[in-house]
Amino acid sequence: MSKVSSRFKAVCLAPVWVIGTYDRAGKPNVSTAAWVGMCCSDPPAVAVSFRKATLAYENILNRKAFTASIPSGNYIKEADYFGIASGRDTDKFADTGLTPVKSELVDAPYVQEFPFIIECKLLQQIEIGLHTQFIGEIIDVKVEEGLAEEKGRPIIEQISPLFFAPGGGFYYAAGPQIGKAFSAGKR
Amino acid sequence: MSKVSSRFKAVCLAPVWVIGTYDRAGKPNVSTAAWVGMCCSDPPAVAVSFRKATLAYENILNRKAFTASIPSGNYIKEADYFGIASGRDTDKFADTGLTPVKSELVDAPYVQEFPFIIECKLLQQIEIGLHTQFIGEIIDVKVEEGLAEEKGRPIIEQISPLFFAPGGGFYYAAGPQIGKAFSAGKR
Repeated sequence: MSKVSSRFKAVCLAPVWVIGTYDRAGKPNVSTAAWVGMCCSDPPAVAVSFRKATLAYENILNRKAFTASIPSGNYIKEADYFGIASGRDTDKFADTGLTPVKSELVDAPYVQEFPFIIECKLLQQIEIGLHTQFIGEIIDVKVEEGLAEEKGRPIIEQISPLFFAPGGGFYYAAGPQIGKAFSAGKR
Repeated sequence: MSKVSSRFKAVCLAPVWVIGTYDRAGKPNVSTAAWVGMCCSDPPAVAVSFRKATLAYENILNRKAFTASIPSGNYIKEADYFGIASGRDTDKFADTGLTPVKSELVDAPYVQEFPFIIECKLLQQIEIGLHTQFIGEIIDVKVEEGLAEEKGRPIIEQISPLFFAPGGGFYYAAGPQIGKAFSAGKR
């Protein structure tokens, strides 16, 4: 086996999250992000990176809060549009007909039609380079009723989250369950 | 549509990465991590979180470097084992028969048999809580020959990266390509 260097200095697949924020005037905005991930279990926290030029960057700093709404594969057009357009030029909720819901827990809106929602308060802001990373404490996770088992555990097959392949610029769906963690490798 | 709060304060699917490090004696170690993600494009950088109790935490601080080797679905047993055992008690490479390769670019080993490799130098260490986040600059990305197109773009269908569902503790495979980014949502 031998390996070749890739000119794409990025991961092979990254999750697609739609980040909800309010601007200074209180207008809800949504921005698609793939430079994201969990970063701590206690406090439960996620990390989301944005360029300084974006409205999301400005909004998160102003409101100290954001949400992450996870789109199903059937919202691929809307999720992609949220990453193309800027909330400075247009109202992305109005453009797509999706519904902003004001979080009762944090100062940010989420997307009603998306099945999996994370509500966050800003904990830290990390300067890295082109991107600034925002670390948000997870205040609540909400799952669409019917897409959650007992205790709110998400049913991945029905939520069907999207992934982004940076080099090729394609989206992928989640595949089948293939094993149990902390179990498959036991000896 | 109505949503229910989940008692699982985590994302629905997280990527599974196997983090390679050297200990003080130079013994290669591998640790499975899902609290990971891209965090910057320039410099290209990834974020990986570990608890302070882990050998990976100690090794990254000592060596200022780590790799991320992305396992294919057919290495699910090894990847799971790397998250169960501690390199303080055993040699996880020897236990599984996988091969450590010394990176020529950073002071860390990667897994020869895994198809997609990220080599990183430590840029920043962020204290969040139970977990510490390590931000690493991507020095190189290597893809198994035959699993990469021209210019080293990874063929996702053949690499078949693993994902982890935190609440249920199950692994998922990547699914099919379902659309083109910065294109599917164009108006």
